[in-house]
Amino acid sequence: MLAVHLEGGAVTVKRRPAPKRKPGYALVRVLVAGLCNTDLELRRGYYGFRGTPGHEFTGEVEEADTRQLVGKRVAGEINLACGACEYCARGLGRHCPRRTVLGIVKYPGAFAGYVTLPEENLHVIPAGMAVEEAVFVEPLAAACEILDQVKIARGARVAVLGDGKLGILIAQALGAHGAEVVHFGRHRAKLKLGGAVEQRIAGTRRPSMAFETVVESTGSAQGLREAVAMTKPRGTLVMKSTVHGLVSLDTAPVIVHEITLVGSRCGRFEPALRLLKSGRVNVRPMVHDEFPLAEAGRAFDRAAERGVLKVLLRP
Amino acid sequence: MLAVHLEGGAVTVKRRPAPKRKPGYALVRVLVAGLCNTDLELRRGYYGFRGTPGHEFTGEVEEADTRQLVGKRVAGEINLACGACEYCARGLGRHCPRRTVLGIVKYPGAFAGYVTLPEENLHVIPAGMAVEEAVFVEPLAAACEILDQVKIARGARVAVLGDGKLGILIAQALGAHGAEVVHFGRHRAKLKLGGAVEQRIAGTRRPSMAFETVVESTGSAQGLREAVAMTKPRGTLVMKSTVHGLVSLDTAPVIVHEITLVGSRCGRFEPALRLLKSGRVNVRPMVHDEFPLAEAGRAFDRAAERGVLKVLLRP
Repeated sequence: MLAVHLEGGAVTVKRRPAPKRKPGYALVRVLVAGLCNTDLELRRGYYGFRGTPGHEFTGEVEEADTRQLVGKRVAGEINLACGACEYCARGLGRHCPRRTVLGIVKYPGAFAGYVTLPEENLHVIPAGMAVEEAVFVEPLAAACEILDQVKIARGARVAVLGDGKLGILIAQALGAHGAEVVHFGRHRAKLKLGGAVEQRIAGTRRPSMAFETVVESTGSAQGLREAVAMTKPRGTLVMKSTVHGLVSLDTAPVIVHEITLVGSRCGRFEPALRLLKSGRVNVRPMVHDEFPLAEAGRAFDRAAERGVLKVLLRP
Repeated sequence: MLAVHLEGGAVTVKRRPAPKRKPGYALVRVLVAGLCNTDLELRRGYYGFRGTPGHEFTGEVEEADTRQLVGKRVAGEINLACGACEYCARGLGRHCPRRTVLGIVKYPGAFAGYVTLPEENLHVIPAGMAVEEAVFVEPLAAACEILDQVKIARGARVAVLGDGKLGILIAQALGAHGAEVVHFGRHRAKLKLGGAVEQRIAGTRRPSMAFETVVESTGSAQGLREAVAMTKPRGTLVMKSTVHGLVSLDTAPVIVHEITLVGSRCGRFEPALRLLKSGRVNVRPMVHDEFPLAEAGRAFDRAAERGVLKVLLRP
């Protein structure tokens, strides 16, 4: 099979044998994979990564212990948990301290012809859902995670900062939940994809202490500072995007206004699959380009271009 | 009356007429007042403060609309709220955006012979409680605020960082609530006053990702970074101390571990008065010195000395 290899900032594609599945694992032929900002960061050396990236994918099961899985189209949860620790016992394998993470932490990823994953990580893609849609289930689950962590009433006004891929999915997911999303970003065309009831271009004055709930997904330190200023006293700010390096933050308004900051990462796949199936989230217009796996280097460059949203890879 | 005046880093004591009370307000003769770190910060120019500081006090009511209040010993809540906004309607006058704050924001403070406050801000000190104890009700209320914001089960292990005045009160308040407090600080004698079941001197290795709930009250950026590292995935970090200027923070662990940071400031007086009355919080050993109001300059210097806890002023 072909497999992408990242090392020292270079993207290469190598030919290597398909992986062997362990008992309890499935061997999945990758049909389509998505490039995420994390992949671009892995190329820059984030996590000291070296190996095969790729954690957004859909594929077809070729081998599994569970016969009914064979031949099924699946998406896969990316955290491989130990199954024995206190987090796993609480159903929070996503926080298992011994976990590996598909294509991110010590586990070969999905930018390859094949991938193996524990069967319990797999979710069968509903009939009628294209694999090009289902490939969004992982980032959409990260957007839905907000609703698992923070109580947002239907009809509540929520500010979403950032109109990148994640910001668009968050705006859509919260909108589908019934929130009145006010979406702040830099690009009118991208904001449009979020489908928010109000869409505001950056540079316009940000309303101060105006929102009970603010979601920060700009990926910038400046975005986090603006988000703090926009949050009402006793309000909640969901920190959705990792900012690399140290962030300079004035903690005084957080304390004086008793703001709650909630770090938010991966989510459960079930609500994301339900949302995709319902049609209330529309991911198709977010696909801006696709490349065969052999041209992964070009795909990485394309995904890093300004204004480009999702880039897909096909093995 | 005498009144302390802060301006340009200088502490002076002036003679001026006693304030006149407005309808709905009480005129209170100050019996004893406490110096707080905030007062030291006001002297350094924090909030661009200029005027009479002092927000921890106990006094005797000399004039009030409500006759029963006259002659009573009282402590006073420090936020003067508008009574009309959405925060006031929710009982959160402490967050009223139009509020003034006794001795901190646009309202003359209690380092003076007399102070006026709305009657609704006053709490009668229970019989048998010394005014030197009751003067701790304001900072103790700030400690108790944590229990209003965060669910802490009896028997839960909670880390408290910092052995200053606030850290000691927090350790005592959480201990009285039934938490198993592990108190981290720099001074064995101060840690002892917190009465925590475990007391650990700084420099010893801080346990990583070890506590479901961590309270940061060191007042330092380093303390906040250590607190993040000590918090378990999906755990809660209560930010209790303002760090001045910008704090350099790595937000990645907050997001990856989905930590919740809760800014925490002033609290309700009722639970603090109950705790003091019960005797389960012991504040007497925290009083390290006292000065007549006329020697306020010396009192400020003394309160700023390393290792000194509460300094009282007597008009």
